[in-house]
Amino acid sequence: MAEEAKPSADGPATEQAGEQEQSIDPWSVSGGADGKIDYNKLLEQFGCSKLTEELVARVERLTGKPAHPFLKRGIFFAHRDLEEILDCYEKGVPFYLYTGRGPSSEALHLGHLVPFMFTKYLQDAFNVPLVIQLTDDEKSLWRGLDIDEARRLARENAKDIIACGFDVAKTFIFSDFEFVGGAFYRNIIRIQRCVTMNQVRGIFGFTPEDNIGKIAFPAVQAAPSFPDCFPHMFGTRKDVRCLIPCAIDQDPYFRMTRDVAPRIGHLKPALIESKFFPALQGESGKMSASDTTSAIFVNDTPAQIKEKITKYAFSGGGATLEEHRSRGANLAVDVPWKYLNFFMEDDVKLAKIGEEYGSGRMLTGEIKKELTTVLTDLVSRHQRARAQVTEDVVDAFMAVRPMHVL
Amino acid sequence: MAEEAKPSADGPATEQAGEQEQSIDPWSVSGGADGKIDYNKLLEQFGCSKLTEELVARVERLTGKPAHPFLKRGIFFAHRDLEEILDCYEKGVPFYLYTGRGPSSEALHLGHLVPFMFTKYLQDAFNVPLVIQLTDDEKSLWRGLDIDEARRLARENAKDIIACGFDVAKTFIFSDFEFVGGAFYRNIIRIQRCVTMNQVRGIFGFTPEDNIGKIAFPAVQAAPSFPDCFPHMFGTRKDVRCLIPCAIDQDPYFRMTRDVAPRIGHLKPALIESKFFPALQGESGKMSASDTTSAIFVNDTPAQIKEKITKYAFSGGGATLEEHRSRGANLAVDVPWKYLNFFMEDDVKLAKIGEEYGSGRMLTGEIKKELTTVLTDLVSRHQRARAQVTEDVVDAFMAVRPMHVL
Repeated sequence: MAEEAKPSADGPATEQAGEQEQSIDPWSVSGGADGKIDYNKLLEQFGCSKLTEELVARVERLTGKPAHPFLKRGIFFAHRDLEEILDCYEKGVPFYLYTGRGPSSEALHLGHLVPFMFTKYLQDAFNVPLVIQLTDDEKSLWRGLDIDEARRLARENAKDIIACGFDVAKTFIFSDFEFVGGAFYRNIIRIQRCVTMNQVRGIFGFTPEDNIGKIAFPAVQAAPSFPDCFPHMFGTRKDVRCLIPCAIDQDPYFRMTRDVAPRIGHLKPALIESKFFPALQGESGKMSASDTTSAIFVNDTPAQIKEKITKYAFSGGGATLEEHRSRGANLAVDVPWKYLNFFMEDDVKLAKIGEEYGSGRMLTGEIKKELTTVLTDLVSRHQRARAQVTEDVVDAFMAVRPMHVL
Repeated sequence: MAEEAKPSADGPATEQAGEQEQSIDPWSVSGGADGKIDYNKLLEQFGCSKLTEELVARVERLTGKPAHPFLKRGIFFAHRDLEEILDCYEKGVPFYLYTGRGPSSEALHLGHLVPFMFTKYLQDAFNVPLVIQLTDDEKSLWRGLDIDEARRLARENAKDIIACGFDVAKTFIFSDFEFVGGAFYRNIIRIQRCVTMNQVRGIFGFTPEDNIGKIAFPAVQAAPSFPDCFPHMFGTRKDVRCLIPCAIDQDPYFRMTRDVAPRIGHLKPALIESKFFPALQGESGKMSASDTTSAIFVNDTPAQIKEKITKYAFSGGGATLEEHRSRGANLAVDVPWKYLNFFMEDDVKLAKIGEEYGSGRMLTGEIKKELTTVLTDLVSRHQRARAQVTEDVVDAFMAVRPMHVL
């Protein structure tokens, strides 16, 4: 693999020293010895670029819209070639967005919503086409999920995704099991030709004990980066740039994709990459759909939301009221504070809470109450939107249909 | 891998002793030290069953039709579960045929026609549905063929295949690049889940230097063995048995398939397997589409056919006329004799030629003249049939359409 892949050519990004190594790949995340993730180290290991304040300002200037809070607050913190995408936009050269989800659970949790909320903002701000891949095949390969069950979950998850408010005129959602074939499959094979077992061993840590579907799968996730996978949207054009908003753990896939792209006559996809939305218990990893106490789900009731925040959200507040009043809360580890940074829309109010809670004037119970209000509101809005998503609406999105998106 | 695969669990079928080892896999064939292929050894190594005269007689009895010469003459000499297929037929339980071709050349050669001629006989004799897979993806992975070129060759080859006389009402021809998706892709993934890199290393000799598409590909060739890949033909039925006529070098694929089948709730495909149609230069391997002097092609002119047989067909005749008259020809290595065994329809005449030539009364020039007549006739009939195959006819075969085949 070429320049892109070098930083992790010998395996998944793993610290070489320390008792517990930080280890990040598309299937699992674990922090270093202190349980925390060192994002600067990750930037360096992966070879991504830092998403600077200047770049955020340029996005605001070009789109004429305020930057999404995820941008202003450094939640989307890394990128590859975002400048080039903005250059395209400035010159009127088209690009499109690609994001996706591995449908492993009935309902999404809040962490799952993060890329979709951000992608919706990007679609609105730039007014561009979007493709959403549901990798039901991947879940079937990795988790041993029954194939019909994986397809069903893909469809259920599509409803949650649609509920985020995407524009049906510019959005194509597809499941691999339904859509793989034709131009898409041809690109999969083009990519597979360029990548050896040794390389996926280096990039993803695959072993000879892994099944051959896993070994070949990275090409399936790579392919939608190329516009001619979607002739009903882009015809045979190869000059439509692709921008991928995703969490940083997906970077190995697209490092591989970017290495392959020029070898098969394609432009490299650009990336805009986020930090992880932490588990209720703290930043030691991603949330798990199989542990319902680790996350708030979009189908949770207000009572469940309140209970989860009260009982499980890790607090950076002082051990005693006295200690809290004198030293203040440790915002760097406080989960309610982190969650508010994702989801509280009012920047002024957020800053005030940070000041009050960080200095000890606001108590843990109080910030948790603020968070409960914000998340209850968010979840109930989502539930209302999802109730509007009928089977017909799902079909409309998932139809392979002529789309006039450019 | 289970019982089926054990005989070659440590790699492609290769003799352990001798200076030059016999080595057979789906991509290359080389004989032992004497350049010949020991088919009995192969039966033993692969674990296939011998196709006995009793079984051939049962085929004749059940179909009420004379056995194809390829059956009577031991050209199709091995099988797996053919008895069970005949049991099905006897009880009125449906089965279907699956064969295929990797489209690597513009025109087929005679060796390529062998499985199709035999499959046509099977379709006629049993009156059963047939699916024909064109693995344009495989050729693109193995040979680095441009994908559009592979698709074009698939379509060209389809014309030659259709020219063999298949029944359009019962035959579905598909290229992987066009058809992979839906139910078919779901089965590919089901199969890939069951097979590890270690296993394909054992079965096919893949190495970590191979590209990931090759490593995963055996599942693509395995999948059509299962009827629910073809909902437009079989609905969701899983009880339709599949019989695969193929050359013996394809056995590793279906050994793998048969091992996987019960694990994913499918019946094992049955096989009926042929010897190789030898190159003009002799039985040391398969013919090569890239060496035009190694084979007679279906688009050769009568003059080319005559020249190739005269100049290149390896003769088992005596070195001098005197020696030939006294010792006779060595039929075991004589290519014109072997070719006549494939393509001369008249059994009585064939036996007579064997006697005359084997005893030295008939000369090499004379048997070559007989062969020239037989092949010129065969090729010109094929060329007339192919001229009738328009683009519309190809479309009719390749359409995914409701088919009432059972």
